[in-house]
Amino acid sequence: MKIGFIGLGRMGSGMAANILKAGHEVTVFNRTRSRTSELVAGGAKAAETIADACRGDAVITMLANDEAVESVVYDEQGVLASLPQGAVHISSSTIGTALAERLAASHIAASQRFISAPVVGRPDAAAAGQLFVIAGGAEEAIRDMSPLLDAIGQKTFVMSDTPSRANLVKLSNNFLIASVIESLGEALALIGKGGVDPGRYLELITSTLFAAPVYKTYGGLIVGERFEPAGFAAPLGYKDIKLTLAAADELRVPLPLANLLRDRFLTLLAADGGTLDWSAIGRLPARDSGQAA
Amino acid sequence: MKIGFIGLGRMGSGMAANILKAGHEVTVFNRTRSRTSELVAGGAKAAETIADACRGDAVITMLANDEAVESVVYDEQGVLASLPQGAVHISSSTIGTALAERLAASHIAASQRFISAPVVGRPDAAAAGQLFVIAGGAEEAIRDMSPLLDAIGQKTFVMSDTPSRANLVKLSNNFLIASVIESLGEALALIGKGGVDPGRYLELITSTLFAAPVYKTYGGLIVGERFEPAGFAAPLGYKDIKLTLAAADELRVPLPLANLLRDRFLTLLAADGGTLDWSAIGRLPARDSGQAA
Amino acid sequence: MKIGFIGLGRMGSGMAANILKAGHEVTVFNRTRSRTSELVAGGAKAAETIADACRGDAVITMLANDEAVESVVYDEQGVLASLPQGAVHISSSTIGTALAERLAASHIAASQRFISAPVVGRPDAAAAGQLFVIAGGAEEAIRDMSPLLDAIGQKTFVMSDTPSRANLVKLSNNFLIASVIESLGEALALIGKGGVDPGRYLELITSTLFAAPVYKTYGGLIVGERFEPAGFAAPLGYKDIKLTLAAADELRVPLPLANLLRDRFLTLLAADGGTLDWSAIGRLPARDSGQAA
Amino acid sequence: MKIGFIGLGRMGSGMAANILKAGHEVTVFNRTRSRTSELVAGGAKAAETIADACRGDAVITMLANDEAVESVVYDEQGVLASLPQGAVHISSSTIGTALAERLAASHIAASQRFISAPVVGRPDAAAAGQLFVIAGGAEEAIRDMSPLLDAIGQKTFVMSDTPSRANLVKLSNNFLIASVIESLGEALALIGKGGVDPGRYLELITSTLFAAPVYKTYGGLIVGERFEPAGFAAPLGYKDIKLTLAAADELRVPLPLANLLRDRFLTLLAADGGTLDWSAIGRLPARDSGQAA
Repeated sequence: MKIGFIGLGRMGSGMAANILKAGHEVTVFNRTRSRTSELVAGGAKAAETIADACRGDAVITMLANDEAVESVVYDEQGVLASLPQGAVHISSSTIGTALAERLAASHIAASQRFISAPVVGRPDAAAAGQLFVIAGGAEEAIRDMSPLLDAIGQKTFVMSDTPSRANLVKLSNNFLIASVIESLGEALALIGKGGVDPGRYLELITSTLFAAPVYKTYGGLIVGERFEPAGFAAPLGYKDIKLTLAAADELRVPLPLANLLRDRFLTLLAADGGTLDWSAIGRLPARDSGQAA
Repeated sequence: MKIGFIGLGRMGSGMAANILKAGHEVTVFNRTRSRTSELVAGGAKAAETIADACRGDAVITMLANDEAVESVVYDEQGVLASLPQGAVHISSSTIGTALAERLAASHIAASQRFISAPVVGRPDAAAAGQLFVIAGGAEEAIRDMSPLLDAIGQKTFVMSDTPSRANLVKLSNNFLIASVIESLGEALALIGKGGVDPGRYLELITSTLFAAPVYKTYGGLIVGERFEPAGFAAPLGYKDIKLTLAAADELRVPLPLANLLRDRFLTLLAADGGTLDWSAIGRLPARDSGQAA
Repeated sequence: MKIGFIGLGRMGSGMAANILKAGHEVTVFNRTRSRTSELVAGGAKAAETIADACRGDAVITMLANDEAVESVVYDEQGVLASLPQGAVHISSSTIGTALAERLAASHIAASQRFISAPVVGRPDAAAAGQLFVIAGGAEEAIRDMSPLLDAIGQKTFVMSDTPSRANLVKLSNNFLIASVIESLGEALALIGKGGVDPGRYLELITSTLFAAPVYKTYGGLIVGERFEPAGFAAPLGYKDIKLTLAAADELRVPLPLANLLRDRFLTLLAADGGTLDWSAIGRLPARDSGQAA
Repeated sequence: MKIGFIGLGRMGSGMAANILKAGHEVTVFNRTRSRTSELVAGGAKAAETIADACRGDAVITMLANDEAVESVVYDEQGVLASLPQGAVHISSSTIGTALAERLAASHIAASQRFISAPVVGRPDAAAAGQLFVIAGGAEEAIRDMSPLLDAIGQKTFVMSDTPSRANLVKLSNNFLIASVIESLGEALALIGKGGVDPGRYLELITSTLFAAPVYKTYGGLIVGERFEPAGFAAPLGYKDIKLTLAAADELRVPLPLANLLRDRFLTLLAADGGTLDWSAIGRLPARDSGQAA
C-alpha cells in the first residue's frame, strides 16, 4: 500500500520503520524535519507538507495529544482537506473520546474512512514491531488496514465498530497502570517505614501473585527512585488521567481512584516534577509518611 | 518432628495434611471436633485440648482472626502456658502487627520461640502444598522449622528477623489484591457504560500488560458477577484492610487507596453483602454509575 | 446611566428590577422574550437583539453557564461586536476563570472595559437587592459602575484588579457550600444510624458552633429530604465543582475534597437525580450506609 | 450536692471552679497534685485518692482520652469500685462510643447511675461557665444532675437516653469542625495560588454565608499560620477522627471525608507536627500545591 505517516516521535519512528520494512510505500511528515532522515535513508519519502503525506491509501497519525491531532487534521491544508475519498485515517495517538468522535464524524462527512488504533507498549516495543494494537472502526476498514496493523504490532484487538471505544479502552489501560503505581507506592511506603527491605519485598510479590511485567517495571523504578530520564513523562500521564476523567464525566461514571491519581500528578507537577517519569507519583506516599524527600 | 496443629479450616486442614504426608508426627486440634476425622484417618492424633497439641517441638496456629489467636494463645491452658521451653510457635494466621509483636514478646518471656509465617494462596494451593510462605523471626528458628515450611509451601520468603514484619508484608499483599479489584471495578464500569464488551476487554488486558493470575481471577469474578459462594468472604477482606490501616496508623503512613477500600467494604457490608466474595466490591463502581443493581 | 441587561432568569430578573428602581434607563434582553414583560411594565425597554441591549454605558450579563456567555458575547452581532468603545461589560454569571480571562482580553482588544461581578445569594436576595457582589477589574471601572453594583447588592467586595479572580472566589464559595453539604450528609448518616434524632442534632449544631445560615438551610433540606423543587439544581452544582477543578488544574492545586464532591454529583446524576436540588448529594452517605433508599 | 471532680486540665479546672461557685461541695482529684491548689484556695477539698473523690452524690470525670478514663474507672480503687449505689458518674471526656457503652453497662451492673455529658467549647468558655453540654442517659439521672450541668454550661442539649449517643454526637461535632478546616484549607490554597489576597477573601466569606465563629477562628489561624501554641493539639484532633471512624466502622457507615481528615492528620504527624494546633492540617493543601513550606 501507499501510505503516509505523520508524527515521528519515539513511538512513531519505530512504527513507520516497521511499515516500511513490510514493503509498503511510505511518505513521512514531521513538524521537526530532521527526524525524517533516518527513515528516508531506509527508503521513505519525506513530505514537505501534511497534504503531501495524504495522497495514498491511508495516513497514520501518531501525535502527542489532542491539540496536535486537531491541528494536523483540521488545518486548512490538513488531513481532512487532503485525504482522497475512500482513503483511511488511522489515528494511533492516545486522545480523548470526544475528539475521536469528532474525527469519526468529520471523516464520514468527507467520504473518508476513519479508524482508531491506539497502541500499548513502550518505544522499544514500537521499534521491534511488538506493540499491541487496540482497534475500533468499521469492520471493513480494519480488515483493509490489517497489513499495516500487523506490521506495527504483535497482535490486534478489535474492540468495537465505534472508533472512540478503542480510545476509551486505551485510556482505561493507562488508568490501570497508574493504579498499579499508586498501590505499589502505598505498599512500599508502608512496609519500608515498617522496616522491611523494599527490594526483597518486590522480589516476593513479583514472583507470586503479581508476576506481571507492569509490577516488575514500575516496582523497580519506584524502589530505585529511577525517575530520570522519563520513559513516559509525568505530564503525559496526567493528561491521560484527565482524558479518562473527561470520558467518565461524559458517561456519568464516578472514578474515585482516578481522582486520587489526578491529585497525585497535580502534586508532583506543582513541585516541579514535570521532567520525571510518571512512576514518580509512586514516591509521594513515602514523602507523605515523612520518609526521604 | 513432633508437632501440633491448631485450626483446621479450609486452609489449615490442607496444610496439616501436607505436614503429615511429609512424615511428621502431627497432633491436631480444632474447636469443632468433627473436622479432625479426615486427618485422623490419615494418621494424625486428635487432641482433646489445646494443651495436648502443645507437647512437641512446635505448634502451628492457623486461625480466622486476632481474637481467635489471642484466645488460643493466652487461655489459661493455652499455647503460651503449655508449650515447652525452646519449642516454637509458628503463627500462620493473617493477624495484625500489634498482636504479632505481643506474641513475640510473650513467647520470649516464656523462653519459647516464635515465628510468623503467614501464607499466600487459596485453599486449593494449601491442599497441594503449593502455598508461598512469608516468614519472619530469628534465623535459627526459621531454619529449624524449614522442613515444616517446605511441606506447606512451594517457596519460603524470609523477610525479617522481626516476626511482625512478615505479618505487615502479608497485610500489604492483601491490600495490593484489593487494589487490583478496585481498579478493575472502576475500569470495567467505565468501558462497560461506554459500550465496550467487558469480556473482550478482559481478554485484552490479561493477555498484554496485566497478564498476571490476579487480574484474570478477579476480572472474571467481577465481569461474571460470580460472588457466591465466597472464596474469600468480604468480612475477611474488610478485616485485612482494617489491620493494614491499623499498622499504617501505628507507623504514621497515610494510605488513601486503603481508605477507599475500607469504604467500599463498609458500603458492601452495610448493604448486607457479608456472604459475598470480597471481589464484590468491584461491582460497586458500576452501581454508582447507575448500571445494574 | 443607560444600561443593558441580558439574561432574565430567576436571578437576573430581580437584579434588573432593582437597577430600574434605582433610576437607571434599562434595556433588557432575554432569549425567551416573554420574560421581559414584567420589567417592561416597570419601565424597561425590551431589546429585539443582543446588539440593541449594548448601546449604553454598560451591559450586564447574567446567564446560566459558560456556553451561554460565550454565545452572547462572541456572536457576530453579540456584545463584543456591539458595545461602544469605553463602555463596560459587567459579567455576573458564575463562569470559569478561563472564560473570564478570555473575555477580559477580548474587551481590552476592542477598547471596551470588562469587570467580573458574580454574586452570592438566592433568588429572594436578588429580588430584594440584598445580594453580595464579588467584584474584580480595573479600579476605575468598578468605581464607575458602583451605582449599579450598589443597586443589586447590599455590599460589594472588591477582590482584585484582575477580573477572573472574582470568578475564582465565587467558585471557591460554592465549593465551600458543597463541602458543608457533604460534611452534614456524613455526620447525619452517622448519628442517624447510631440512633440520634436528626432534628434534635441539627438544632444542637446550628445553635452552637455552626450557627450560620448555610448549616441551617442545608441541614434542614437534607434532614427533611426536601430536594424538590430545586432551589439550585444538581447539574448547576456539578458544573460549578467542575469549573473549580478546572481552575485548580490550571493552577496546579490538588483539591481532594472537590474530587469527592465531583463524584457525589456524578453518582446523583447517574441515578437520574438531575432535577433535584444540589443538597441531594447530602443524602448519599445515608444511602451508602444502607439507610433508606 | 456533694460531688467529686476528677481531671483538672485546662477544661476540667474551669468546670470544677464553676461548680464550686454554684455552691456545691467539691472534692477534686488530679494525677498531678499541684493542679488542685487553686481550687482548694477557692474552697474545694483535695482528694488523696480517686476513691476519696467518689464518696458523694456524683463524680465528674474530664480526662484526655479513653485510656485515662478506663484507668480511672476500672482501677481496683477506681470510680467503679468506690462510687456508692445510686450515685452518678458523669463522664464529660471526649471518648469513644464503645467505651461509653462499656461504662454504662458496668455502672448498671454495680447499681450506680451513668450519664455521658461531653461539652463543646474551648478553655475560656469552660472558665466562664459558657460551655454547651451534650447529655445522654436516663431522664431521671440527667434531671437530678441538672444543677451541675447548668453550672458548667450555658445550655444542655439532651440527645438520648442512651449515654453513648451523646458521645457519638460530640465526635460528629469535632468531625464537622475538622471538615471546616479542610474545606477552608483547600479554598485558601486555590484562591491564594490564584493571586487573591487571603485576608480579604476571609473577610468576604465570614461576613456573608459563612458568618459563623468556626470559620472566623479557623480561617484566621490558617491564613496567619498561627499553629503554636496549640489551642487543641493535632494528636487530639487525630484521636477524635479515629474515634469517629471507629464508631462508623461499628455502625457500618462509610465516611470518605473523615478518611481524608485521618490522612491529613497522619501526614502532619509524620512530619513532626505533633505540637501544632489541629488547624495546621489546613495548611497541607497549600503545601501540596507547591506553595510555601
